[in-house]
Amino acid sequence: MQQRVCEANCMLPKLGLVTLTWGNVAEINRDLGVIVIKPSGVSYKAMKPADMVVCDTQGRIIGDQRLRPSSDLPTDVVLYAAFPQVVGITHTHSIQGVAWAQAGRDVPVYGTTHADNFYGPIPCTRDLTQTEVEEAYEKNTGHVIVETFTTRNIDPVATPGVLVRNHGTFSWGSSAIKSVEVGKVIETVCEMAERTETLRRGAQQEIPQYYLDKHYFRKHGANAYYGQL
Amino acid sequence: MQQRVCEANCMLPKLGLVTLTWGNVAEINRDLGVIVIKPSGVSYKAMKPADMVVCDTQGRIIGDQRLRPSSDLPTDVVLYAAFPQVVGITHTHSIQGVAWAQAGRDVPVYGTTHADNFYGPIPCTRDLTQTEVEEAYEKNTGHVIVETFTTRNIDPVATPGVLVRNHGTFSWGSSAIKSVEVGKVIETVCEMAERTETLRRGAQQEIPQYYLDKHYFRKHGANAYYGQL
Amino acid sequence: MQQRVCEANCMLPKLGLVTLTWGNVAEINRDLGVIVIKPSGVSYKAMKPADMVVCDTQGRIIGDQRLRPSSDLPTDVVLYAAFPQVVGITHTHSIQGVAWAQAGRDVPVYGTTHADNFYGPIPCTRDLTQTEVEEAYEKNTGHVIVETFTTRNIDPVATPGVLVRNHGTFSWGSSAIKSVEVGKVIETVCEMAERTETLRRGAQQEIPQYYLDKHYFRKHGANAYYGQL
Amino acid sequence: MQQRVCEANCMLPKLGLVTLTWGNVAEINRDLGVIVIKPSGVSYKAMKPADMVVCDTQGRIIGDQRLRPSSDLPTDVVLYAAFPQVVGITHTHSIQGVAWAQAGRDVPVYGTTHADNFYGPIPCTRDLTQTEVEEAYEKNTGHVIVETFTTRNIDPVATPGVLVRNHGTFSWGSSAIKSVEVGKVIETVCEMAERTETLRRGAQQEIPQYYLDKHYFRKHGANAYYGQL
Repeated sequence: MQQRVCEANCMLPKLGLVTLTWGNVAEINRDLGVIVIKPSGVSYKAMKPADMVVCDTQGRIIGDQRLRPSSDLPTDVVLYAAFPQVVGITHTHSIQGVAWAQAGRDVPVYGTTHADNFYGPIPCTRDLTQTEVEEAYEKNTGHVIVETFTTRNIDPVATPGVLVRNHGTFSWGSSAIKSVEVGKVIETVCEMAERTETLRRGAQQEIPQYYLDKHYFRKHGANAYYGQL
Repeated sequence: MQQRVCEANCMLPKLGLVTLTWGNVAEINRDLGVIVIKPSGVSYKAMKPADMVVCDTQGRIIGDQRLRPSSDLPTDVVLYAAFPQVVGITHTHSIQGVAWAQAGRDVPVYGTTHADNFYGPIPCTRDLTQTEVEEAYEKNTGHVIVETFTTRNIDPVATPGVLVRNHGTFSWGSSAIKSVEVGKVIETVCEMAERTETLRRGAQQEIPQYYLDKHYFRKHGANAYYGQL
Repeated sequence: MQQRVCEANCMLPKLGLVTLTWGNVAEINRDLGVIVIKPSGVSYKAMKPADMVVCDTQGRIIGDQRLRPSSDLPTDVVLYAAFPQVVGITHTHSIQGVAWAQAGRDVPVYGTTHADNFYGPIPCTRDLTQTEVEEAYEKNTGHVIVETFTTRNIDPVATPGVLVRNHGTFSWGSSAIKSVEVGKVIETVCEMAERTETLRRGAQQEIPQYYLDKHYFRKHGANAYYGQL
Repeated sequence: MQQRVCEANCMLPKLGLVTLTWGNVAEINRDLGVIVIKPSGVSYKAMKPADMVVCDTQGRIIGDQRLRPSSDLPTDVVLYAAFPQVVGITHTHSIQGVAWAQAGRDVPVYGTTHADNFYGPIPCTRDLTQTEVEEAYEKNTGHVIVETFTTRNIDPVATPGVLVRNHGTFSWGSSAIKSVEVGKVIETVCEMAERTETLRRGAQQEIPQYYLDKHYFRKHGANAYYGQL
């Protein structure tokens, strides 16, 4: 599990999703009751599987470990508790995703690349309040993500990621590696959407619902026919 | 042939045309009555020539094969039937091409890089209707491409590619590798055209027809003098 | 020290911060009274540690050395004298940073990536006057940077870099390598900010002050909890 | 000489200046009366020094050679005749340069990166007329470049490159390699200038003349002090 989480973290620079040390991947094993996550502020090049930090599902470090976990761990703990299907979680400050998060905008469904992976817009959360930031910033980041999905009635399986306003991306999936791939999807779809708006100078519309249904369900669910069995 | 199709598929990530597994290349041998295409959802790194899927010209898999073909195969079958000169076909979700496809715009002929390779705008298809999407999406994607060329009287040899609205690019040529190169042409020309419009703030015009004639025919046809004999 | 400065200079092309030879890194050792800096106009590939130029803290070359120092050395001398906490200084013509410097704009604090690293906008200096340019251009570039921090009451430790109007970036830190990393921060934050403005079409606002406080002080100062102890 | 021209051509893809085979470098030896140039349409990877085509200064191939020269050779012949100080010439369809050429705009002097290398705007030629295109396109491309420098009284040594309207870049210098480096300068400066205009939304001004004088003459001429002796 540490090996896998280390590999998933090392995918971040290879896929162009991180600058310096700005991103991390975690994975949970609910049967064993453990979360494994990148150590805080350590470079991807220097990292070994044994450096991955092992915690319980409340985010408490298990036994003696040399390194401190990513500061985003309390966010992941909240997401794991609220979204029982999620196994891997990736957080990045990838450039295109951050641009939309800083603009405070949902990413509209402008095409099938988006629809293949997200069944609806990529949502952007609200600002945290001053109290939320000062009292328990990382934990409340998790709560504001969960609130976004609850109040807007979004299914976190069909919408496997979010933009945290002013901040960056969180993405998730059935494994650490899957969550990194969704992080790459967000980055790519964000760039496509920005360029689409530039070419349409503000007149852009979302694709028809039947396109969204077709593309999403050809890759997901009982009748999927994309990929191998 | 499987070797060649595998190599052509592996060019896609090297040329920056694909994210994850979003793109595929096929080639037809009309004498043998076979189409060879990338397997669906398999990564370029993991792929071997023997993994390429072999079908008949109707897209039916020949004999026992372990892997399923790309879901875009029915599109290619329609294009091969309609465009008898086409041997290789490439499909991508390359970023610049998708931006124009999502914007639903033809790419105007803004310069000689375009004119060297396309004798006219790169056309963008119409939306598919709900019925077309629901009944036979991939096959109807092929039909709407053919309709675009037929109703607008475009020669698929002189215009070796298209943007499928909301979706991505299809490009073709005299071999699998040639079709990938045209995919790279589309990506590059799309980026150049977007930047040209940014610099002109909407006042951009297409190049004069005599430029288009000169550049296209210096590379194509009986009087071409670009490249080696 | 020459080894370390050479390595820091070689990070510039790896991090995508320089074109051709347009960038350099220096480090000071105040106890020894020496500054070590890249030689002028030499390519990063050809450079060896022994090629790094060794000067005193006034910028006078010590002993016999084959190569001339970077022409920006007089700027660094002024900065070292004015900012006693600074050890490493990096100068680049990195593309995104130059775009903001040429536009003559401070980079606003649009998100937490910025706030993690700069406690406030990245300032842009004024133009140098004709006299300043003609009499002692590089030295006066240092003076105009210092003036920017003094007159605007900016702490160079909490704001470890600047855009020099019409020109490029200077960044600094507790070592040569740290100053290069801040150069990368500037480049990334500049790109994020430009894209954010594009997505908001001019209506963008800075993040609330409490976000800036939280993010900056979680990485810096007595109560920092990001990274390892 | 063939070795050096081959190496200079191979720099084009490494510096990100070419797509597929769209670019070439030539060098002249006026004492020997020969021009050496890339063969037409051959990939950079496959090229060997012996493949470089050797011509006289009128562009006539010398002796028996297997490969045809780049189709841009007649342009270079005109430039070599008109600009006696020029030794190396590079032609590219690099993306940022083409965007400005397609927009038909001179690149204004927005900063010192530009001023370090070009003593004034990077000029853009006029359109060729239909007659010029049809009668001797490549030769007349050379003539329209020379006309641009003559009628606007521009010194080709202080302004070592040009945008050919609708087409791409030509750059030159004291060797094949120098001309490639100027090609990289143009590409970088073009991107910086586009981004600067985006950030200023049309209100951008050129730098003061005294900046241009300072930066250009600190790298060029009798009083230059940048680089090594």
